[in-house]
Amino acid sequence: MKATGIIVEYNPFHNGHLLHAAESRRAAGHDVLIAVMSGPFLQRGEPALVSKWARTKMALTSGVDLVIELPFSLAVQHATHFASGAVRILHSLGCESICFGSEDGSVESFKETVAWSTENKELLDGQIKSYSKKGISYPSAVALSYEELADGTSKKVDLSKPNNMLGLQYMEAIEQYAPSILPYTIKRQASGYHDPTLHENKISSATSIRKTIAESSLSCIKDHVPPAVYTELSEYYELTGQFHTWSHYWPLLQHAILTKSPEELRGYYEIEEGIEYRLLDAAKQCQSYRSFMEAVKTKRYTWTRIQRILTHLLNGSKKEEISLHLSPSYLRLLGMNSTGRSYLQQHKKHLSLPLISKIGRENEKLLNLDIKAGMVYAMGVHDTRARQQLMESDFKMPPIIL
Amino acid sequence: MKATGIIVEYNPFHNGHLLHAAESRRAAGHDVLIAVMSGPFLQRGEPALVSKWARTKMALTSGVDLVIELPFSLAVQHATHFASGAVRILHSLGCESICFGSEDGSVESFKETVAWSTENKELLDGQIKSYSKKGISYPSAVALSYEELADGTSKKVDLSKPNNMLGLQYMEAIEQYAPSILPYTIKRQASGYHDPTLHENKISSATSIRKTIAESSLSCIKDHVPPAVYTELSEYYELTGQFHTWSHYWPLLQHAILTKSPEELRGYYEIEEGIEYRLLDAAKQCQSYRSFMEAVKTKRYTWTRIQRILTHLLNGSKKEEISLHLSPSYLRLLGMNSTGRSYLQQHKKHLSLPLISKIGRENEKLLNLDIKAGMVYAMGVHDTRARQQLMESDFKMPPIIL
Repeated sequence: MKATGIIVEYNPFHNGHLLHAAESRRAAGHDVLIAVMSGPFLQRGEPALVSKWARTKMALTSGVDLVIELPFSLAVQHATHFASGAVRILHSLGCESICFGSEDGSVESFKETVAWSTENKELLDGQIKSYSKKGISYPSAVALSYEELADGTSKKVDLSKPNNMLGLQYMEAIEQYAPSILPYTIKRQASGYHDPTLHENKISSATSIRKTIAESSLSCIKDHVPPAVYTELSEYYELTGQFHTWSHYWPLLQHAILTKSPEELRGYYEIEEGIEYRLLDAAKQCQSYRSFMEAVKTKRYTWTRIQRILTHLLNGSKKEEISLHLSPSYLRLLGMNSTGRSYLQQHKKHLSLPLISKIGRENEKLLNLDIKAGMVYAMGVHDTRARQQLMESDFKMPPIIL
Repeated sequence: MKATGIIVEYNPFHNGHLLHAAESRRAAGHDVLIAVMSGPFLQRGEPALVSKWARTKMALTSGVDLVIELPFSLAVQHATHFASGAVRILHSLGCESICFGSEDGSVESFKETVAWSTENKELLDGQIKSYSKKGISYPSAVALSYEELADGTSKKVDLSKPNNMLGLQYMEAIEQYAPSILPYTIKRQASGYHDPTLHENKISSATSIRKTIAESSLSCIKDHVPPAVYTELSEYYELTGQFHTWSHYWPLLQHAILTKSPEELRGYYEIEEGIEYRLLDAAKQCQSYRSFMEAVKTKRYTWTRIQRILTHLLNGSKKEEISLHLSPSYLRLLGMNSTGRSYLQQHKKHLSLPLISKIGRENEKLLNLDIKAGMVYAMGVHDTRARQQLMESDFKMPPIIL
């Protein structure tokens, strides 16, 4: 059995993901599809709409054979660590190919861009640094530098598009950590990554789906997700009475900030350059997450970067703790179907990292950051019983078997 | 003008306090009554029912001329630090006498007990230590040791009574820090300190008043507090929709515990002897403050001691931070009437500590622990507007002038 890997967040799973899963399988021609998926908190520094268990079920009912958790220390990260973490996990699982969505759609363009950037690394880094010094955010600085310096290259990927940028990171990670893996890319359909409105062809962005759920109701997105996903979302809402948003964590965040000194705040991951003072001032003055974010925001810091900082603060992740976990050291099994199970049976002796399907005394410390993130995520649930259940899930839930 | 000092928490102010204020003034025969009062969090490790501002108003409408805040680092403390902090503040204010309530009622008995314990310090300390080693809580160990060792002393105070125990600490603090101060004690009327039910003579314990408010309604305690206090309590409830209890802070406390490692928890004041592991285990399993406390409780730790630990954790107070603030270094003015104002005018040149009536940039750092406690206290308020107002009060509220 041979496997293709995909890197996902499924927040929530939608029709575009369904296409991506099917096309990934077809493109590589392998018989197993493995997804490495962020846990409770996502790359953009947000709580997922629903738990990792619910999102695992969505994946398994929609074409994925095996779901592995991308550890917290790699999931809530800028694109470089996120991509290398995910690629290395898929490599440890024995994947022979990786397939990612992009606006560009041509793996050749990506290869050329990677080749060009390897050749021009120093020049590129210098330019990025000089843009950053002007107070331009890192992603924009990267995109601008490429545009400026690589203008003559024939098949350059347009890095102002978010999925192209992430794709480049996957390609670089593959080259560095897993050159034996074959990369594929699929051109993204119709709607853009951050499109705020639902698309009439029923392939809508996750952003527009979340926005519609928040502003209207769940039923409005029914046609934009597979039926099993819709059922899963409805059941989650019925059980907990909510979908998770930052607002649910605002009192905890405000308290976490205001009980710390600037020196203490600097101990948390990615807090630097004096942003600790902005956080303290804004937390004193604001009484909602939204107004707090507006008060903290500057040109230098993207919304995403601030949210990631806040996610680390909310989860109590210290600099030294995260720094120790920038290389994957385990494979946390969230769920599988019979194909996934057969694949694991066949490959379990060749996995290069330990496979963990149950948390016990012996591996509790290893997974400490993920366990903490799971508990913190649960604390955003208002309903006592649902909160308790979710809080214990990392210890009590066996992997989802479909 | 000469002043008598009293040490209070007023949680809430009641008819017994009214008597105590009047009798204190009479006993010493001085014209000014100064109260040093705990701020938002109390000696027993609990949030006060209502804000320090509301409690200051209660005091000023009921016989007190001047209210000074007992700083957080001295208020949320076992009896020794609490008593010495309060006595030293009253001494700095130039008080010539201090009057405290006790079950015993005779200052001579206290003096004899202090004399005896000074003489037998080593013997006493040894006995207390030996009881503590057997897992007996500190207050019980002290009471038992006195009972056993000082049995022959003619006028020994019964230290199993809570106000006698606190009185002894006041007396010892006066002897050590302010021997020029004249101590007085007033025999407590009818109801005991911890009596759970209201007393028919309308002089009820604060415990019974809080219990009645929690279990019945505010109107049931109307006759047990002065009319102005009743109005103040009603207005507070109308504004905020609540009286503060630990339950309001439970989500913040649970989050603060679960995002820390045992090593990090050990950095907070009074966390030692492995209680950090009990806190972590209980916080994982419990979804209410009450059940959490029941799970953490052991014979060795009194309910009060655990609550104090939790208050420090909730306020993010580190060991080194509190240790630096065990001596009073400022006099925070909360409120005064015209008599109090005249007294301050007359004595302001002789105060041995700086008087602070407004928090600005220059003293913000000095009062950091009190400011933090004020903000954390406000975070227990559900209503957004009332929370915001309370959160800013340390910066925006001038002292209450009556």
